[in-house]
Amino acid sequence: MHRYRSHTCGALRKADVGTNVRLSGWVHRVRDHGGVLFIDLRDHYGVTQVVADPDSPAFKTAEAVRSEWVIRVDGKVRNRPEGTVNPELPTGEIELYATEIEVLSAAKELPVPVFGEPEYPEDLRLQYRFLDLRRETLHAIIMKRLEITRAIRRRMHDAGFNEFPTPILTASSPEGARDFLVPSRIHTGKFYALPQAPQQYKQLLMVSGFDRYFQIAPCFRDEDPRADRLPGEFYQLDVEMSFVEQEDVFSTMEPVLTGLFEEFANGKPVTKGWPRISYDTAIAKYGSDKPDLRNPIEMQDVTEHFRGSGFKVFAGMIEKDPKVRVWAIPAPTGGSRAFCDRMNSWAQGEGQPGLGYIFWRDGEDGGAGPVAKNIGPERAGAIKAQLGLKDGDAVFFTAGNPANFYKFAGAARDRVGQELKLIKEDQFALAWIVDFPFYEWNEDEKKIDFSHNPFSMPQGGGDALDAAKTDEERLKLKAYQYDIVCNGYEIASGGIRNHKPEVMIKAFGIAGLGPEVVEQRFGGLFRAFQYGAPPHGGMAAGIERIVMLLTGGKTVREVALFPMNQQANDLLMGAPSEVSPKQLRELSIRVVAPEKKA
Amino acid sequence: MHRYRSHTCGALRKADVGTNVRLSGWVHRVRDHGGVLFIDLRDHYGVTQVVADPDSPAFKTAEAVRSEWVIRVDGKVRNRPEGTVNPELPTGEIELYATEIEVLSAAKELPVPVFGEPEYPEDLRLQYRFLDLRRETLHAIIMKRLEITRAIRRRMHDAGFNEFPTPILTASSPEGARDFLVPSRIHTGKFYALPQAPQQYKQLLMVSGFDRYFQIAPCFRDEDPRADRLPGEFYQLDVEMSFVEQEDVFSTMEPVLTGLFEEFANGKPVTKGWPRISYDTAIAKYGSDKPDLRNPIEMQDVTEHFRGSGFKVFAGMIEKDPKVRVWAIPAPTGGSRAFCDRMNSWAQGEGQPGLGYIFWRDGEDGGAGPVAKNIGPERAGAIKAQLGLKDGDAVFFTAGNPANFYKFAGAARDRVGQELKLIKEDQFALAWIVDFPFYEWNEDEKKIDFSHNPFSMPQGGGDALDAAKTDEERLKLKAYQYDIVCNGYEIASGGIRNHKPEVMIKAFGIAGLGPEVVEQRFGGLFRAFQYGAPPHGGMAAGIERIVMLLTGGKTVREVALFPMNQQANDLLMGAPSEVSPKQLRELSIRVVAPEKKA
Repeated sequence: MHRYRSHTCGALRKADVGTNVRLSGWVHRVRDHGGVLFIDLRDHYGVTQVVADPDSPAFKTAEAVRSEWVIRVDGKVRNRPEGTVNPELPTGEIELYATEIEVLSAAKELPVPVFGEPEYPEDLRLQYRFLDLRRETLHAIIMKRLEITRAIRRRMHDAGFNEFPTPILTASSPEGARDFLVPSRIHTGKFYALPQAPQQYKQLLMVSGFDRYFQIAPCFRDEDPRADRLPGEFYQLDVEMSFVEQEDVFSTMEPVLTGLFEEFANGKPVTKGWPRISYDTAIAKYGSDKPDLRNPIEMQDVTEHFRGSGFKVFAGMIEKDPKVRVWAIPAPTGGSRAFCDRMNSWAQGEGQPGLGYIFWRDGEDGGAGPVAKNIGPERAGAIKAQLGLKDGDAVFFTAGNPANFYKFAGAARDRVGQELKLIKEDQFALAWIVDFPFYEWNEDEKKIDFSHNPFSMPQGGGDALDAAKTDEERLKLKAYQYDIVCNGYEIASGGIRNHKPEVMIKAFGIAGLGPEVVEQRFGGLFRAFQYGAPPHGGMAAGIERIVMLLTGGKTVREVALFPMNQQANDLLMGAPSEVSPKQLRELSIRVVAPEKKA
Repeated sequence: MHRYRSHTCGALRKADVGTNVRLSGWVHRVRDHGGVLFIDLRDHYGVTQVVADPDSPAFKTAEAVRSEWVIRVDGKVRNRPEGTVNPELPTGEIELYATEIEVLSAAKELPVPVFGEPEYPEDLRLQYRFLDLRRETLHAIIMKRLEITRAIRRRMHDAGFNEFPTPILTASSPEGARDFLVPSRIHTGKFYALPQAPQQYKQLLMVSGFDRYFQIAPCFRDEDPRADRLPGEFYQLDVEMSFVEQEDVFSTMEPVLTGLFEEFANGKPVTKGWPRISYDTAIAKYGSDKPDLRNPIEMQDVTEHFRGSGFKVFAGMIEKDPKVRVWAIPAPTGGSRAFCDRMNSWAQGEGQPGLGYIFWRDGEDGGAGPVAKNIGPERAGAIKAQLGLKDGDAVFFTAGNPANFYKFAGAARDRVGQELKLIKEDQFALAWIVDFPFYEWNEDEKKIDFSHNPFSMPQGGGDALDAAKTDEERLKLKAYQYDIVCNGYEIASGGIRNHKPEVMIKAFGIAGLGPEVVEQRFGGLFRAFQYGAPPHGGMAAGIERIVMLLTGGKTVREVALFPMNQQANDLLMGAPSEVSPKQLRELSIRVVAPEKKA
């Protein structure tokens, strides 16, 4: 017989009754029922009930074992007594009568219990992550993550992609977030950097003649702690394709991700034929470029109903500034003063002066509430008609320059949806957000900046850049830049790249950056573009966020194997840590006291 | 029609003749045959011949294009004229008569040509890696690497393993090679380290209750340049299993790797049922712990034939020191004075005083050469008989303490095999090397050290450690530590781990290291072992080395996508590079001049 096991702890069934077997695993829990000991023995594959009574030669050892000891058990499989069968457990019909128990590894008193999974402080759980990972729920989430990753690989291969490993020791790039740096020992005073993403390498692969790249790629960002980001490192599904337009990326990746979500949705509906929503529309309808489309509320512009109306606050604003708009947030079934007042209080809690509203009761098209009173029944009725509202519904208003209030309007939409339970939670609502602006206005420096990343192709190419003569026109330029959203999260982002050196220089020029900046920041890529570059584009999707959505996890740390805590400490391994003077000497660096903040 | 292509450059066949198609790709080369232009258009999938004559509206553009420009070609598929069909090319029966050509991206003069693949200095090729990767041979090697990686994943999954991503930002571990360090911005004066291998994490996964781990894992070592190692980073197939003995690792991994080699061997034979060779036997028979088993030569101990013989040099050495042995390196078909003298000269070139030999001609069992003369025909005949040699064969001798000469003996064995063409090159000769010594003697510090790594279980466990009372006995202890060798390369290394804290402390103690050292160096793992650890073991195989063997590549740099050069410079991206004072300030580090070597 094998030294440790003839079966795993998830394998034995009724058909095995009467056979002599050997199991090894962790003691999940021990129960003493009137002098008979029941040990739930657990391994990766399942749990089997082990029994030892005082007649068994194994009894003495069985009395000694404690939770999370690792033991080997020899014994005979037998039927569980009538009434003790556990239909929830695959091994629930049988038990193992122990004849011999060997302790393979004892356990000290547990700082974090495994059985029962009680709540414990996160830092303690991270310090003893190896115990935390034994918990059934976390074990299942991690295994699901691995399954999802594997399914992604399978689906990407089926779509004709190959997985290319790109370098992890690379050059510092001053774009985006902060780099982690790695001092070079051989080249004194110089540093490698860990990639924030394999952006330049994947584009270089296209220039190198490989056609369809993907990678489950580790990415590194030295960011300040954020609840929705993993500190330090995370993984993305990184994708790039040659000789494509935006439509090709969509028609390739939408089936891959729809299929993936369906595979792991547990029967929950997944959007088929994702809507494509322009950035401008997303902001106008949902107040967000990552709208939760499970929420049926769509906002509308109702400015004209307030122009010259008796609601002087709005009317005056509209009069004074052509940029001012009034947006309506419909609230189906929200037609009560109590609800409207609750929303108003919430808005005040968010730092707003308040939230104007109208609500409708039986047959009164003119509606109720102060705004209704001020604008009169005709305008209120017209608003009701425009929004398709019925008696028993309400509407809330925000007014001003949408650039300043759209985020709040989006939050109000979310809030109304939640409060009125309009959100059908058990689904995956996916969409493409398209036509992102190419540039944005940097109010601090009073200049034009790249809106997303400088690698994207402006829609209309170099000609469109030339045609836009004023900042106003330039700010209207769109990029071939897109996101995928799901249930209010941005799960992916991508673009068709600017593969033309001369258009790149033009685009940088408008952002006030000379050709030398292009050369300095993206030297490798910029040089490559001068030796025959194919048109190309792609995207990158956040693995942890997708896993979080598909497993119902609450934080991205939960779906990572050995995450650091929010202060970027690995409490299990004790990283970061001090290093020896010899190590620093070899790297020719010295630690200096941080400068006082001025 | 699609903006860039209706087909790839590898797709068109005789059945497509007469259809209008669109291709995009790189201009592989342009030939002018009497005013008719032939363009070989290349993409990831293949090459298609494009034709433009002066009647074609595309002719003018065709005249302008140069090597490695990216173009789009519209045209009609037609049969190649009789006599110009190229049976070597999948598209060799057809050509595309161009009616329109669009330049998608021009190319400057090429610093490294793609067509014809002439030799160029490696640094220039690395600087323009995106051009180098377009070469057919390198493109094929890289694609093969990706295929091999994919096959490894498939085979590991089929064997019941799951791929777990372990952290890349982790703690510095003072074992093994030098770590790359990553200064922490948030924790002033502290550093993360990049993993030299996920050794501790994979063991922690076993302690966490996951049963079968693998990972195509990036590993990082800050080593000085070595020709057979990738500078900086490399990949390994990392494997770990719970509740196993050495035999389980063998019976699991041998089929995986045999299957992998067979899949990519191109019909070359692959060892079935790998021999298991103890470390001591490998040294004695092959003079190496990574023997090339394609070489049929096996050395033998022939000391007794020389004891008290007329060959006074050896007889005297044997007399004086019981550690002295004489090893014989048989050289079938090497029985000529010319060959024996050539080997003797080679040995002198290697810094040896010379290489004793006997060779046999027709029917003279006493053999020829000075050694034969000195020991006489009876002893020479006995040697011939022991080694199973025939007339026309030779034998070479090395004498002394084997610890000092075995490497040279191994090199002589290689040399004889090569010179006499005894090595059947076209095969993959695989074997397990087992029973490595647990400890070794550190001559500098006159103390016992761990021979391989301190994670392995000594054979016999803690009891064997207790039983060995003297250094001599301790140096005879074996570890559950094994390698896989192929054609003279070590391609994998592994062991059954020491999962018992008390045995770990004992083992470290013998090496002169106290419990506090265990705690300090392997805190996370050592702590985990105290909370229920399963017996476990595994291995790690070098991906680049396997790919090199299977693709016939000459260097590990050739099979990497964007390798650094031997000075650890990424010439394409310009890494390592200087960073901004702001970046250093944020990290609270300063670059200092390296200390003068004393």
